[in-house]
Amino acid sequence: MNALIVYAHPEPRSFNGAMRDLAVQVLTELGHDVRVSDLYAAGFEAAGGRTDFTDLEDPEAFRYQREQIRASQAGTFAPQLMAEIDAVRWADLLILQFPLWWFSLPGILKGWVDRVFAMGFAYGYGETHSSGPLRGKRAMLAFTTGSPAATYSASGANGDLDRLLFPIQYGILHFVGMDVLPPFVAYGAARIDNNGRTEYLRDYRRRLETVEHAVPLTFDVADTASRSD
Amino acid sequence: MNALIVYAHPEPRSFNGAMRDLAVQVLTELGHDVRVSDLYAAGFEAAGGRTDFTDLEDPEAFRYQREQIRASQAGTFAPQLMAEIDAVRWADLLILQFPLWWFSLPGILKGWVDRVFAMGFAYGYGETHSSGPLRGKRAMLAFTTGSPAATYSASGANGDLDRLLFPIQYGILHFVGMDVLPPFVAYGAARIDNNGRTEYLRDYRRRLETVEHAVPLTFDVADTASRSD
Repeated sequence: MNALIVYAHPEPRSFNGAMRDLAVQVLTELGHDVRVSDLYAAGFEAAGGRTDFTDLEDPEAFRYQREQIRASQAGTFAPQLMAEIDAVRWADLLILQFPLWWFSLPGILKGWVDRVFAMGFAYGYGETHSSGPLRGKRAMLAFTTGSPAATYSASGANGDLDRLLFPIQYGILHFVGMDVLPPFVAYGAARIDNNGRTEYLRDYRRRLETVEHAVPLTFDVADTASRSD
Repeated sequence: MNALIVYAHPEPRSFNGAMRDLAVQVLTELGHDVRVSDLYAAGFEAAGGRTDFTDLEDPEAFRYQREQIRASQAGTFAPQLMAEIDAVRWADLLILQFPLWWFSLPGILKGWVDRVFAMGFAYGYGETHSSGPLRGKRAMLAFTTGSPAATYSASGANGDLDRLLFPIQYGILHFVGMDVLPPFVAYGAARIDNNGRTEYLRDYRRRLETVEHAVPLTFDVADTASRSD
């Protein structure tokens, strides 16, 4: 497999950094080709807009999706962005490695999604979900949290983790057609001891070793019709 | 009231721009004081990290929350960030005005949340939700979508809108203690005709006229225990 790890943490010596390093090592040992996009190190631009493109169809009234469709056909994405798009095209497996900030992706990583998953490349009219252009690729979230696991349960203060991740796992990754693997979560990574961290890395190694054959999540969106909220 | 509109759209002539202008006009007419943070115009930095601070407790191993707590006490946030924090402190009403990108906030606006809602300022240990430091303030999402309303229903391809907004409305705005008002949504704003746009602006005017007395949303998080997903 070709594996792309998109890594978004401001501190290389963080636990997210350790997870990234482990993933590179394990996936390489398994014979996969691995690339890392280190968004902070690259100074990746998070604000989607005019700077995404080398050339605009209508500079007077900027329309994002229209410009994305044009750039997907004409290859007029800015060089830094084009490199990321090419990396996603190349990848069979996409791992997003990040700290869960505000129950979601850090701003720089959300900006990566906004810009890289461009209309015309990652989706189109009627080309989403099972018809998404990125179908056949696998994706997995790998992240740390600040709070312990119990707070992410249905009875916890943060609410159920699956519910919090729905806009990312279904709304982003499955939208473009990817098979979404169960997330790997290191709860309270900054507040546990070294033994806890070692255990998380051991568990993550096991998850990476089986990532090629892991069963993807299913999203029974119609099921929401029976919910009361 | 003091009203802060945080506006995130790359094109001033967009429908989001029209909604922002209308909100400034209507709220001013009603006698409120209004400020706008125009994130694209300001070149707001979206990547939370070392540049948030004028001075670090530990430059060798950057820990975000620890540095945020320190900066909240010492006033050592970077000037651009401090101005945003002061604006949130000043505001009785916070309106986030944005295009819904990937069922969430655009990267630049998510970065604003990551950096401005700093630990020590917007929340603390045991100081969240009804004990959140920003309690008593009102917040409202005002946004456009690409797709029509039917796609955001429980039986639609995108899933229920409340479900998609849960991490933002509960996970961000209610977490810090704010009363979250029902969102104002302009569906398919880029793809409807001028009559449709005029109607949305008329509806939005009405919403703004009653914003001071609107009943906040409730979040029955414990209820998730009865859900099957």
